Amino acid sequence: MINEITTLQNIVRYNGQRFVEAEDDIAIESALTIILDGDEFATMVCTPSELQELVVGFLASEGVIRSYQDIKSLHIDEDKGFAYVDLINQHSIQKDFHSKRFIGSCCGKGRQFYFHNDVKTAKTIRSNLTITPYQCRKLMEKLQESSLHFQQTGGVHNAALCTRDGIIISRTDIGRHNALDKLFGYCIIHKIPLKDKIIAFSGRISSEVLLKAAKIGVGIILSKSAPTNLALSLADELGITAVGFIRGNGFNVYTHQERIQEVVTQE
Amino acid sequence: MINEITTLQNIVRYNGQRFVEAEDDIAIESALTIILDGDEFATMVCTPSELQELVVGFLASEGVIRSYQDIKSLHIDEDKGFAYVDLINQHSIQKDFHSKRFIGSCCGKGRQFYFHNDVKTAKTIRSNLTITPYQCRKLMEKLQESSLHFQQTGGVHNAALCTRDGIIISRTDIGRHNALDKLFGYCIIHKIPLKDKIIAFSGRISSEVLLKAAKIGVGIILSKSAPTNLALSLADELGITAVGFIRGNGFNVYTHQERIQEVVTQE
Repeated sequence: MINEITTLQNIVRYNGQRFVEAEDDIAIESALTIILDGDEFATMVCTPSELQELVVGFLASEGVIRSYQDIKSLHIDEDKGFAYVDLINQHSIQKDFHSKRFIGSCCGKGRQFYFHNDVKTAKTIRSNLTITPYQCRKLMEKLQESSLHFQQTGGVHNAALCTRDGIIISRTDIGRHNALDKLFGYCIIHKIPLKDKIIAFSGRISSEVLLKAAKIGVGIILSKSAPTNLALSLADELGITAVGFIRGNGFNVYTHQERIQEVVTQE
Repeated sequence: MINEITTLQNIVRYNGQRFVEAEDDIAIESALTIILDGDEFATMVCTPSELQELVVGFLASEGVIRSYQDIKSLHIDEDKGFAYVDLINQHSIQKDFHSKRFIGSCCGKGRQFYFHNDVKTAKTIRSNLTITPYQCRKLMEKLQESSLHFQQTGGVHNAALCTRDGIIISRTDIGRHNALDKLFGYCIIHKIPLKDKIIAFSGRISSEVLLKAAKIGVGIILSKSAPTNLALSLADELGITAVGFIRGNGFNVYTHQERIQEVVTQE
């Protein structure tokens, strides 16, 4: 595939006065089914790019693998939309269990996790990384500059793994969680150290997005959009700095403000 | 609850020069677990408003119920986030089956459904409703005017059930599918005829959004955002007019243009 992200289609455009034939760049969406040790594990719809990273990130996010070495073989049939994964130690968790609600032990004072896989995989972040307001804004600017497809199609999310000084890689998907799973997969495959990393994200910070950041292991998440209250209570608890509404010169710091400093501290 | 959609929280705002304490309206996100005939059926995160509609719409969308009369009792515990549903005819479908990938019979020429529940519930639409370009733009304007919470928090999606002339009801949720399920639930509970209805939606038209429209049973979906190619191929097949990028005076018609007419035809 030359371009896995968008496809040109003939459409009809109403220009305010009349209908005209036109061509438009449309975001590609396709299904990917993961077959784990011979059994159907999950089907997702996604942008069909970096599928290996997506599968690895998804399995790590679900708590099925902890490192790339847990995978014996991974074969992707792009045309049919299947990923065949065999593990070194065969997967024994009851499939149903993953999406079961996690009920905290007592009095509603536990962490606000809602799924068993989150309890297992979301980590508390202990990074001492700080960044300046200027760096926050610059990283969001760079994410937007790199998001050519979003500007073209209006239909995809972008997530970038960054240092203070710039973007290392950015990943695109029609599904917000998939874009983050692709980053996660990249980090696991390439064993990227995460204490000094930041995630810049094009979408809203929901609880699921925040949990992905905790699973990946970064201490700062930047977004031009808004968070939810559940995401913020998880961010507070898991030690993650959530920064939102990065627009123009300003932004909001919702949690763990200690990581946003006018002067960069050396690590 | 006075306001189920947003909550005021103390935040820190960087105004371009310094950090200032501020208050901000944050979108509420909470978990809802559906217990169906005594068994855990699904857990979702949602905006905790119109939960009865959400549960009814979700169960219909999953193919568990076909009408409101299929439900014997429905009790919602808002504080704990549980919905207890008992059906007239006890639910017998293998739970796992719902999310199993549907593999078309042969040669890849079948409909592009990816889940068994979609095969069961998405209908081909045979509505003769037409609307004018002016009505398209007006309905999207009205959706945006009604979306006060989106403007306040930047964090929720809005879906509205409309006639050609205006909005009947609009529903809000942090999850795009939930907003549509709330509309679906409303329609089922109140037995709303759908042949002359339109859905206006604040988000992107993905395959899942398009399938919700088909399940609800409307022939026209309007969005200010973009569609995916999979959504368009489903729209084409299921007889739905997909209109996107409604901005200013213009918009794109992607499928079944016959329903967008300069002159309104009488039904």
